Amino acid sequence: MSLMLDKLRRRLKRRGLDALLVSQPENRRYLSGFTAADHGISESAGVLLVTAAGPSFLLTDGRYRLQAEQEAAGFEIRVYPRGLFPLLRRLFNSLALERLAFESDYLLHSVFVGLARLATEKGIELVPLTGLVEELRQIKSAAELALIEQAVRLNEQVFAEVYGQLRPGLSEREVAALIEETMRRRGAEGPSFPTIVAAGPNGAMPHAVPTERLLAPGEPIIIDMGLKVGGYCSDMTRTVVLGQPDGQTLAMIRLVRQAQLAGLQALRPGVAGRHVDQVARRVIEEAGHGDHFGHSLGHGVGLNVHEGPSLSYRNGKLLRPGMVLTVEPGVYLPGWGGVRLENMAVVTEAGCRLLNRDTTFLDA
Amino acid sequence: MSLMLDKLRRRLKRRGLDALLVSQPENRRYLSGFTAADHGISESAGVLLVTAAGPSFLLTDGRYRLQAEQEAAGFEIRVYPRGLFPLLRRLFNSLALERLAFESDYLLHSVFVGLARLATEKGIELVPLTGLVEELRQIKSAAELALIEQAVRLNEQVFAEVYGQLRPGLSEREVAALIEETMRRRGAEGPSFPTIVAAGPNGAMPHAVPTERLLAPGEPIIIDMGLKVGGYCSDMTRTVVLGQPDGQTLAMIRLVRQAQLAGLQALRPGVAGRHVDQVARRVIEEAGHGDHFGHSLGHGVGLNVHEGPSLSYRNGKLLRPGMVLTVEPGVYLPGWGGVRLENMAVVTEAGCRLLNRDTTFLDA
Repeated sequence: MSLMLDKLRRRLKRRGLDALLVSQPENRRYLSGFTAADHGISESAGVLLVTAAGPSFLLTDGRYRLQAEQEAAGFEIRVYPRGLFPLLRRLFNSLALERLAFESDYLLHSVFVGLARLATEKGIELVPLTGLVEELRQIKSAAELALIEQAVRLNEQVFAEVYGQLRPGLSEREVAALIEETMRRRGAEGPSFPTIVAAGPNGAMPHAVPTERLLAPGEPIIIDMGLKVGGYCSDMTRTVVLGQPDGQTLAMIRLVRQAQLAGLQALRPGVAGRHVDQVARRVIEEAGHGDHFGHSLGHGVGLNVHEGPSLSYRNGKLLRPGMVLTVEPGVYLPGWGGVRLENMAVVTEAGCRLLNRDTTFLDA
Repeated sequence: MSLMLDKLRRRLKRRGLDALLVSQPENRRYLSGFTAADHGISESAGVLLVTAAGPSFLLTDGRYRLQAEQEAAGFEIRVYPRGLFPLLRRLFNSLALERLAFESDYLLHSVFVGLARLATEKGIELVPLTGLVEELRQIKSAAELALIEQAVRLNEQVFAEVYGQLRPGLSEREVAALIEETMRRRGAEGPSFPTIVAAGPNGAMPHAVPTERLLAPGEPIIIDMGLKVGGYCSDMTRTVVLGQPDGQTLAMIRLVRQAQLAGLQALRPGVAGRHVDQVARRVIEEAGHGDHFGHSLGHGVGLNVHEGPSLSYRNGKLLRPGMVLTVEPGVYLPGWGGVRLENMAVVTEAGCRLLNRDTTFLDA
């Protein structure tokens, strides 16, 4: 991982920054190799202080000392027995920093207030940054891509196994539990987000939480699942029907699949993220369902299941080879239900390469 | 839940605040009943704008509209199709706020910058607050306590079932997966944190992540697990040995159990959180292991598995009836392993009441 660290340090130098305080946990892992997970932003397993020209530090508490020493090669481990700020004060005394950047998108206001007080005391200028490490992370290395592909492959195996066991009378919650059990049994580190199983009308909520509702024949059932392998995520959605789908369900699945294929066709280097969204969205709009597709077409996937770049009207930046994205159009009809189909692809020099193998069964 | 909302509004009035923006997800659920979970702080399912004298709003995105309408009785649901700030601007135009508080411990610096810009534009004074709703949440209602007790009971049942299946040759990761599968099969919403199974030397890391290490006879195995029922958490740690524990393991278990009992004895209303920590810590210090107990004695449990109040040197505040806490001393010896024992108790008028039933098997 020291390649990534070197890249970051060059960027810091270019911006006239002496150091960056890294609080975002996946950025921390990406740069240091330290795999500890935060239990929420208020329970951090540590922060990095990456200097542009000198040593870099992993600041953590005593519970993580051994793990940090084992994993974070190239970082000096410093343990804070009494909170972060006293330790930072000592480091600032020895490092003579003038301009210190921090992650504005992953620092709590209250922590910022404490950091600002300390910076003032030491005559350090604080510089809020957003997305610097996240931008490096958007382009996957071969090693990262291999882990993502493993995750996608395992995801498909888990789905296939569970799909074979689906039957009317199972509850959404039972199916979600079965999926997550199967993930773990087959060696995933765990789900990359809480599994969504949304049957019938519940499918009209794109972020539905599994309920006690029982699966019934004929209705669309959205299964949105992801898992982690070596820290890297998969994300996949299938919409399935037990027994015979009715005409409306079939039409919706075909429409969404058509939008997905249009999106994948448009996914290539040099086009803006918003362009791909527009291409797929137009298919759904032209069918009169523009108002029923209320989320963006896709997002980057890596150490975070949702990361940059996004395929959304907000993203005017150009896509580049090595980016890994989901393409997941959907149509949601309140009272009826929803259909969403999601695959993952990597942007190549020529276009994109689908990471999913199993796509055919969706072409209902 | 509207009782809690009324209490909050009175507190806002008392402080001369016109409204509070609630971004912390468990605070949001506590006040509104809206059960959606955030996928990390950067992917919020919504915020509340609670006014002291007028209506209160749940601001969310289209994906959560139906769920919000179903769950958040007493809140006006407003959907932001184009992000939070345009919607806030419209609400500010109609509400004529002068002093708006926000949650400093759960607002990102970058969001704060946007909010501050909007507040300046509208002539609103921003007031950072910490812990206002969290403080209300520390005292559990009878309904909340009932859910916590259900969670603790289920936790013990899951542990007992898995304990009966433990045998040498299972890996830490397999045991953790088995625990989480059993949780779900028995009806838990899910784990309240990633299950810890740390065998032998791995137990020296209080926050160890389960590895491929196989359980072996004679060594201490720390199992730290929690689950959720109705949104409320349990948290329980057992240290078990397969076969005969050796002399050192037995001595450590006895020492930690003695510290736990001392802590529970000291847990009562009117004493400071730090006092309870000191009492239990002294037992471990007097045995010469003060340096091997590097975390605080306990923490509050509720909608968050870690919440206030803490039993730590930092907490000088007095405990009050209705608070639910863990008591979890530990001893960690690098190279050897660790022992931690954790029960939950509720502070009563007279002292405390243990929420765990199954405690005897630890008295090795």
